[in-house]
Amino acid sequence: MKALVYGGPGERSWTEVPDPVIVDPGDAIIQVDTVTICGTDLHILGGDVPAVQPGRVLGHEAVGTVVDVGSGVSGLRQGDRVLASCVSACGTCRYCRGGGYGQCLNGGGWILGHLVDGVQAQYARLPFADLSTYKLSPQTSDEAAVMLADILPTSYEVGVLNGRVRPGDTVVIVGAGPIGLAAILTARLFSPSRIIAIDKAESRLEAAKQFGADITLTPDGDPLEVVRSVTDGLGADVVMEAVGVPATFELCTTLVRPGGHVANLGVHGKPVTLHLEDLWIKNVTITTGLVDTYSTPDLLTMLNAGQLDVSRMITHRFAFDDFMRAYDVFSDPMSTGALKVVLTRG
Amino acid sequence: MKALVYGGPGERSWTEVPDPVIVDPGDAIIQVDTVTICGTDLHILGGDVPAVQPGRVLGHEAVGTVVDVGSGVSGLRQGDRVLASCVSACGTCRYCRGGGYGQCLNGGGWILGHLVDGVQAQYARLPFADLSTYKLSPQTSDEAAVMLADILPTSYEVGVLNGRVRPGDTVVIVGAGPIGLAAILTARLFSPSRIIAIDKAESRLEAAKQFGADITLTPDGDPLEVVRSVTDGLGADVVMEAVGVPATFELCTTLVRPGGHVANLGVHGKPVTLHLEDLWIKNVTITTGLVDTYSTPDLLTMLNAGQLDVSRMITHRFAFDDFMRAYDVFSDPMSTGALKVVLTRG
Repeated sequence: MKALVYGGPGERSWTEVPDPVIVDPGDAIIQVDTVTICGTDLHILGGDVPAVQPGRVLGHEAVGTVVDVGSGVSGLRQGDRVLASCVSACGTCRYCRGGGYGQCLNGGGWILGHLVDGVQAQYARLPFADLSTYKLSPQTSDEAAVMLADILPTSYEVGVLNGRVRPGDTVVIVGAGPIGLAAILTARLFSPSRIIAIDKAESRLEAAKQFGADITLTPDGDPLEVVRSVTDGLGADVVMEAVGVPATFELCTTLVRPGGHVANLGVHGKPVTLHLEDLWIKNVTITTGLVDTYSTPDLLTMLNAGQLDVSRMITHRFAFDDFMRAYDVFSDPMSTGALKVVLTRG
Repeated sequence: MKALVYGGPGERSWTEVPDPVIVDPGDAIIQVDTVTICGTDLHILGGDVPAVQPGRVLGHEAVGTVVDVGSGVSGLRQGDRVLASCVSACGTCRYCRGGGYGQCLNGGGWILGHLVDGVQAQYARLPFADLSTYKLSPQTSDEAAVMLADILPTSYEVGVLNGRVRPGDTVVIVGAGPIGLAAILTARLFSPSRIIAIDKAESRLEAAKQFGADITLTPDGDPLEVVRSVTDGLGADVVMEAVGVPATFELCTTLVRPGGHVANLGVHGKPVTLHLEDLWIKNVTITTGLVDTYSTPDLLTMLNAGQLDVSRMITHRFAFDDFMRAYDVFSDPMSTGALKVVLTRG
């Protein structure tokens, strides 16, 4: 089969690799029907995730059709159409038993396209298949479902739920890429009074408006002044970091009100400065997190109920044979305006 | 009257000042019967809290007897014996209405011995007296009650409750001064499996054991190895920072398990490094806070029910005329073994 293979920092190829096979009784093999590329894949290509070894098939967001299952798989059968989640889960360890699947201790968590071969391929092996997949109803499109493999649950759990967005809140989202936009979309489920999106790119601010941001501005637009002006000088109730660099994280901690929440969504490669000399007295809560995907069933329900319009997230569509070009487009959003790019078996 | 007056960094004197008088209708004047010194007072004397101006009477922890009340005070009368809390509260602003008294927007919060004259004096003015005092029952001793003016609610709210200590947890407390010891005492209310106290001073580790720490060690005792060895390699469920310097905060973030909580209790004067490159994926929650004192009524109930033995917190007793010496003793705990020093009108 063909797959998108990581060749070391900066190196990737759409190339022939052996077909995946059942290794463990809990495995399933899927034919990948629809797949997307994540900002995390770009981090890997940038060399920021050294655990990913050259030769690894990338990708952790797909919709596919089950073609084979191991002897220990009880809930799937050949022909089932499934969402392959970015997080795999053994279901039995301490973390999985508490719904903390992202921190699975038995070889689950974020493993696809990271510690085992991923789903940017014609076929993929899914470990712990019973708990790591979600059967899709016919009404759910592949394109919509694949948005729920990572970005929707990540933004919802790690941003909106960890940040405890509540009705009436002023919510600031720093970074209006796909994760920031998904945070806007899912923050709205809690009826905040106001969402303020901050990004360097005007095109992304335009997208933020379409997703429901009330106020958009660039970092040069004096975010502190803007946020204070609409919050009686206090600051925002919830601030989400959706970029992953020190400057944006530090901006978040200046924008939050006393008693507010800073939810980090960004993948960070460097330490940041935490101004505890200001924050110790402010009753601030800062959360970090890898998605657990405990919310995926709820998100599928909301998707099918028409509460989550994820279609505008997808800006580009390709066939698998155009995988290299899809990466080019996704890697250069400033020129291409790319949000999420979707690839289909075609 | 006499009072302990801040004269600028490093300068303090027990000296004659004018008696306090009712300024606002919500004020009460108390005769101070019992008072203590806080580590925060030492921070002020170190010049770390520039909002405190020379000439300020210090102190924010006292028990006293009401001698006068303003026309707007409804719940207190002359002769009432009250706990003067470290936090004053208007009761009507956005934060106070939500129980966030420490962030009061109308001139409350931590003001005593900070923005207005404090209680290390023969008499003191207590603004917003109805909400800033607690009437004491005869069974509550002055010495026990004064431990509830700041350190007990601070450790309980900002450490134990913000850190969400739960039964069965492994709790690490970095710093075994009065705040750290009060954190041990109040963490035990939630029946953790294990409390590990870390401090440089062996005398404080000995005190930590008496307060209920199961394991004590110095920072040189390889805390990471010790914590991992008792947590299946995972790290602690809750880690509290009770020192207030960058190194101890950073230690806390290495000791916490994925999904765990770091609760900052320390008063910090410098920024710290937050290793988001490790923590972004770990589902960690970090909280900061000034005490709100919403828990003070509960703590008084527990004190009177015999659930909180605070007596061993008090190592030294002085009369008011020995105020200067009391500061000397409290400022040098390594030599004196001081935890809390209590001064009485005598």
